[in-house]
Amino acid sequence: MTESGKNLDSDLEEFKGRLEGEPVSSFLGMRLLELTPSYSKVTMKMRPEYLTFNGYVFGGIIMSVADQAFACAANAAGRTSIATQFNTHFMSGPAPDDELIAECRVVRRGRRVDICEISVSNQGGKLIATATGTAIPLT
Amino acid sequence: MTESGKNLDSDLEEFKGRLEGEPVSSFLGMRLLELTPSYSKVTMKMRPEYLTFNGYVFGGIIMSVADQAFACAANAAGRTSIATQFNTHFMSGPAPDDELIAECRVVRRGRRVDICEISVSNQGGKLIATATGTAIPLT
Amino acid sequence: MTESGKNLDSDLEEFKGRLEGEPVSSFLGMRLLELTPSYSKVTMKMRPEYLTFNGYVFGGIIMSVADQAFACAANAAGRTSIATQFNTHFMSGPAPDDELIAECRVVRRGRRVDICEISVSNQGGKLIATATGTAIPLT
Amino acid sequence: MTESGKNLDSDLEEFKGRLEGEPVSSFLGMRLLELTPSYSKVTMKMRPEYLTFNGYVFGGIIMSVADQAFACAANAAGRTSIATQFNTHFMSGPAPDDELIAECRVVRRGRRVDICEISVSNQGGKLIATATGTAIPLT
Repeated sequence: MTESGKNLDSDLEEFKGRLEGEPVSSFLGMRLLELTPSYSKVTMKMRPEYLTFNGYVFGGIIMSVADQAFACAANAAGRTSIATQFNTHFMSGPAPDDELIAECRVVRRGRRVDICEISVSNQGGKLIATATGTAIPLT
Repeated sequence: MTESGKNLDSDLEEFKGRLEGEPVSSFLGMRLLELTPSYSKVTMKMRPEYLTFNGYVFGGIIMSVADQAFACAANAAGRTSIATQFNTHFMSGPAPDDELIAECRVVRRGRRVDICEISVSNQGGKLIATATGTAIPLT
Repeated sequence: MTESGKNLDSDLEEFKGRLEGEPVSSFLGMRLLELTPSYSKVTMKMRPEYLTFNGYVFGGIIMSVADQAFACAANAAGRTSIATQFNTHFMSGPAPDDELIAECRVVRRGRRVDICEISVSNQGGKLIATATGTAIPLT
Repeated sequence: MTESGKNLDSDLEEFKGRLEGEPVSSFLGMRLLELTPSYSKVTMKMRPEYLTFNGYVFGGIIMSVADQAFACAANAAGRTSIATQFNTHFMSGPAPDDELIAECRVVRRGRRVDICEISVSNQGGKLIATATGTAIPLT
């Protein structure tokens, strides 16, 4: 399922550098593991503070790791993009101590619009959510 | 735009009680302001740790306050629901010190499926995002 | 619920002219009733050939009248747009002889992206579907 | 990309029989080519009457063939389902004489909700659209 990294060493290094200092990455514990011009992989360890009143992992947390993978992949081709639309399907709830892995693939890279597909799984490969997103390149 | 609260005093009080102890509400600073069987209003103050590497508020944070309003409204009619789908449109970025207000309306309350509409605005009434969600009642 | 037409007489007339000759409008029996730079209203009478094997109106037909309203509103501000994303929620099935009315409102008109909301009702005001769409201006 | 048919001969035959008499299948020229309990493949030849005023294939037509694949796959496991949500991303416009092929895969088959992914390509394998849908089993 994973594209292997080719000619992205500089992109990946630059992104990793920027993300290391990113406030929300630190706050939510998100880490970029892989980045190519059309693919990204981000992980996030679940924490007790992500739970809702009924003991489930909060949907906004699941969407956050998916959104981070989306942002990384959409911005990985050397241009800046903003998200305009993001649709999530929740498949199954993570366990409270799962580590989520979000993978994003750019399905269509256009001049005016990018379309991406994201999957979120846990450390055991169980599918937690899928999402699709639309990003608009600004540059 | 706001439905006034009627015959929900017990629901509202119960929910507020449960949410006061909710881990993710505390973690993200989300507060339930209003709740009726078909409407909810949740606020969330932006914080420096919600920013991305380029200085924008993270999309996952905006989706989180919307998702919380969705969860409250979907669960407000005395049954437990789980989210299965959530589609967000991002309209404009919040300022780093905005206070976001998410309002959710249940558009269709069915036996097998609920459909909700959510809007997220800032303290000045500027539209930040809209969303629609599908919830499945379990009980 | 309806915006009144102002300074769009020429747009409306031009659009109505173009749509009168439009193949798919004739094929599906869609008629543009109102058009302003941020609003459109399109109707479509149900026909026996729109039914599925179980006697319901086909979802693709309901999405078609919604999509036509979306296309009209998105293109009504004097520029040409293409649809990139369209999300539909089905609320209740039309009767086999209903006349559907789709109304589209442009919620955000941007330089690079338009976001629209569409509702589909029957002749009695019963909500059949809602939708949201993203359009990209080409000009 | 295609699952091969196993133990679905009766389902496929029954479905093909029902669809042969389906009004909207005849009206839009949709044909079911393959069906397994978790996969379907439907084709639709483009026609001059599917064009819009600017010469493009109408979005509602593209969504129709996707929706038909969705309906077939969702109903293929021996229970009756209704669509509640359907999100489409338009990738590129078909040529006026393309033959579209929609493939639907059931990603999650649950007791209360099914989630499906659909791709629409032309006869040359060019990606025209992708979609995701939520269906609710009634039986």
